[in-house]
Amino acid sequence: MHIRIILNEPLYAGNIGSIARVLKNFGYRDLVLVNPCPIDDEAWMMAQHAYDLLDGARVFETLGDATAGSNLIIGTTGMRGETTGRHIRMPAYTPERIREKLSGTKGGASVASIVFGREDHGLTNEELMMCDMLMSIPTAEQYPIMNLSHAVAVVLYELSDIGIGDILLADRCDLDLLYEHLEGVLCDLGYPAHKKHKTTLMLRRIFGRAELTAREVYTLRGILRLVDYRLRRG
Amino acid sequence: MHIRIILNEPLYAGNIGSIARVLKNFGYRDLVLVNPCPIDDEAWMMAQHAYDLLDGARVFETLGDATAGSNLIIGTTGMRGETTGRHIRMPAYTPERIREKLSGTKGGASVASIVFGREDHGLTNEELMMCDMLMSIPTAEQYPIMNLSHAVAVVLYELSDIGIGDILLADRCDLDLLYEHLEGVLCDLGYPAHKKHKTTLMLRRIFGRAELTAREVYTLRGILRLVDYRLRRG
Repeated sequence: MHIRIILNEPLYAGNIGSIARVLKNFGYRDLVLVNPCPIDDEAWMMAQHAYDLLDGARVFETLGDATAGSNLIIGTTGMRGETTGRHIRMPAYTPERIREKLSGTKGGASVASIVFGREDHGLTNEELMMCDMLMSIPTAEQYPIMNLSHAVAVVLYELSDIGIGDILLADRCDLDLLYEHLEGVLCDLGYPAHKKHKTTLMLRRIFGRAELTAREVYTLRGILRLVDYRLRRG
Repeated sequence: MHIRIILNEPLYAGNIGSIARVLKNFGYRDLVLVNPCPIDDEAWMMAQHAYDLLDGARVFETLGDATAGSNLIIGTTGMRGETTGRHIRMPAYTPERIREKLSGTKGGASVASIVFGREDHGLTNEELMMCDMLMSIPTAEQYPIMNLSHAVAVVLYELSDIGIGDILLADRCDLDLLYEHLEGVLCDLGYPAHKKHKTTLMLRRIFGRAELTAREVYTLRGILRLVDYRLRRG
């Protein structure tokens, strides 16, 4: 699903630049501005290496034009907890819930527009009514209002589904050999028999939690072989 | 679990203020600065209603002092994908995975320090080596480096959902004794000197990731004492 980020009447150019950077950080490109403040040096400075996104941002005069062609319009709000009897702001989904809802929707031509309001007063009731769903980031009651660019960062982080590299975990059979080896070394050390089973299990749990790589298992077994060798020589 | 956010030598006061605001947005209070730039008007402006957090931020001269008393030290890095053969930066967990790992640990006295590096060059290898685990936000390859305050926002958003359990993690000083003991045993084993440093670091990474309990450290040290004893007797 294509995600479009719409900033509705943003007041601070620095935020617009920061948000261009965040889009690029998470691999998005579609930035749309409705009646923005002038894009000054502060914006270009905050955009850093995302000047192409800032340069390519489309500008419209109305939110209606900005959301044109969207299959889904998601409004954001920092206000929550109003009664369910009022249908404008409720219910506001968490970013996580929105991600779940968007998952499984067909990609390709589908566009979800996420609309962020002004830094001071957010979206008006009229603007919120144009939205299909509302989203709100769970924050502390004491100070729920986030900086605009931080809110965009959190939403895009949640919605992005980028994997993190390709750590090669150890094979199950290498792990089993490591655990056997550990148990063997405990035996050779003369570890108290009545504690051995429990301790072997503890070692399995520790190394299991650590999610060992193939390389780490190799090095650990090298240490155990050295213990074997020294014990035998002794 | 108590979360401490440590900014190591931040260069821009605006970021420090923004980060104070993010902490308050997500209900955190413990902000620690190591050798920060001067806290000027920009910082107070960006902090908005989080001036109390900015005012209460503790300042230290070394990362060692800043992390004192932490049960777990988590370093952050924007660099990923190095080979598994190098033990310094690999593996870096996603914030989601860190949340899962921290879930279930006992609240109260346990402190997890999350260390963020300089805006330009992040954390040095030496600083990364002081950490028990590494965390990296999954970003687009084309432009992976996030603004510092945005990275903190994403991490705190993800961690603000941690479940509380009753697992009591090992003290920092018990962990340090374990690591010393491991290094000592490698020496006694005649482990090749040119590999020793790298292997000690690998062991720290493995046990760091495993989040050892006090009990587990106790049992592991018992095994090491037995190795000592048998080697000496031999």
